[in-house]
Amino acid sequence: MQTKGKLYLIPCPLGDATETIPAYAVAVLHSLTHLVAERAKTTRHFIKKTNPPKPISEYQIEELNEHTPATELEALLRPALEGHDLGILSEAGCPGVADPGAKLVELAHRRGVEVVPLVGPSSILLALMASGMNGQSFAFHGYLSAKSPADDLKRLEQLAIKHHQTQLFIETPYRNKAIIEQAMKVLQPNTRFCIAADLTLATQFVQTKTIAEWRKMPPMGLDKRPVVFFLIG
Amino acid sequence: MQTKGKLYLIPCPLGDATETIPAYAVAVLHSLTHLVAERAKTTRHFIKKTNPPKPISEYQIEELNEHTPATELEALLRPALEGHDLGILSEAGCPGVADPGAKLVELAHRRGVEVVPLVGPSSILLALMASGMNGQSFAFHGYLSAKSPADDLKRLEQLAIKHHQTQLFIETPYRNKAIIEQAMKVLQPNTRFCIAADLTLATQFVQTKTIAEWRKMPPMGLDKRPVVFFLIG
Repeated sequence: MQTKGKLYLIPCPLGDATETIPAYAVAVLHSLTHLVAERAKTTRHFIKKTNPPKPISEYQIEELNEHTPATELEALLRPALEGHDLGILSEAGCPGVADPGAKLVELAHRRGVEVVPLVGPSSILLALMASGMNGQSFAFHGYLSAKSPADDLKRLEQLAIKHHQTQLFIETPYRNKAIIEQAMKVLQPNTRFCIAADLTLATQFVQTKTIAEWRKMPPMGLDKRPVVFFLIG
Repeated sequence: MQTKGKLYLIPCPLGDATETIPAYAVAVLHSLTHLVAERAKTTRHFIKKTNPPKPISEYQIEELNEHTPATELEALLRPALEGHDLGILSEAGCPGVADPGAKLVELAHRRGVEVVPLVGPSSILLALMASGMNGQSFAFHGYLSAKSPADDLKRLEQLAIKHHQTQLFIETPYRNKAIIEQAMKVLQPNTRFCIAADLTLATQFVQTKTIAEWRKMPPMGLDKRPVVFFLIG
């Protein structure tokens, strides 16, 4: 029986903070030829910044994103089944968490391909660390429903109170302002609310305050900032 | 008004995998004099392995663990309030997640001290990445109740099914065998179960299978392995 390759989960910087990728993960990336990326352009840009030992054109990059049909997963995993090590990268942060890469990892387990996660930046984890909230028990929900964010906020607040469980969610940049306004309006005064933006970047912002305290602050200028995390606890 | 120092959340390796700590995080650690650690001995051991620019004795390390009374938190934060940058380290992995460090981070937010999380290994995140389960929605529960683990397992399985939410938990090493046996017994055949051990180490083991598939496997030799993660999805 042919020895299978491994599937390496390779982290990618959040923004331009390339220094957050440990050298051992960069070394694995450099050693590979076969890559699966959420977006090939972002991955090429990242590889270029890491001073690669071979021309960018020698990296064979296939895309896996939310539009990829399930029927194409087998073809994406094929290099590993044929004995080559394979790397998968997200557009930002760690693959397999809140991105389409989890589907390929799932298939790797089914096909007996060893999965090796490498250490790197995760905005979910960094937001949780920096929030000072209850890291013993937490839940991540992805995006709130666009239809009834106020109901979602109240539901998460109830979960936080009932289970002493920190609730994390994200928003798309153009809804940041609206969601903060809703939170100030519908959450209870003593509920703690954390806003985390631009993690690992020079412009990083992380603050946890009660809703009563936030209400006394001037409005936040987070309108255009991508990937803002909110925690309720 | 005196300028306050920052509180840096500094990652520590899981086991001896020092290469997983990015150089920029090690550089911050080296630049500090004031540290708060879950266990000073572990932190000194880690600093020694990073080729520090000054003698170990020049790092002032105070301990913060599950026995530290809340009344001592102010004293631990004092260097930052007096203008010195301060670092906090966990016994393994990232501080502030499932460790007592979150209490100091919480106080830092209340006292207006800027909190800066640095990138490093987190067994929770690595297990989630490598599981191939649903990273769009997940919950971490810490330890199951020792009294009724079977009830807890069934409850988490119901949460996973009802909310399409991956459920993560950990066990103490001496209960690994018992919890795996319980899971094989009480979970449904088509429920996916992931076992992740020794993350980032050479002995790393991560496998996701259905309960029906696990039942066909020989018993796992995970008895003595610390920090084993289990995911239900």
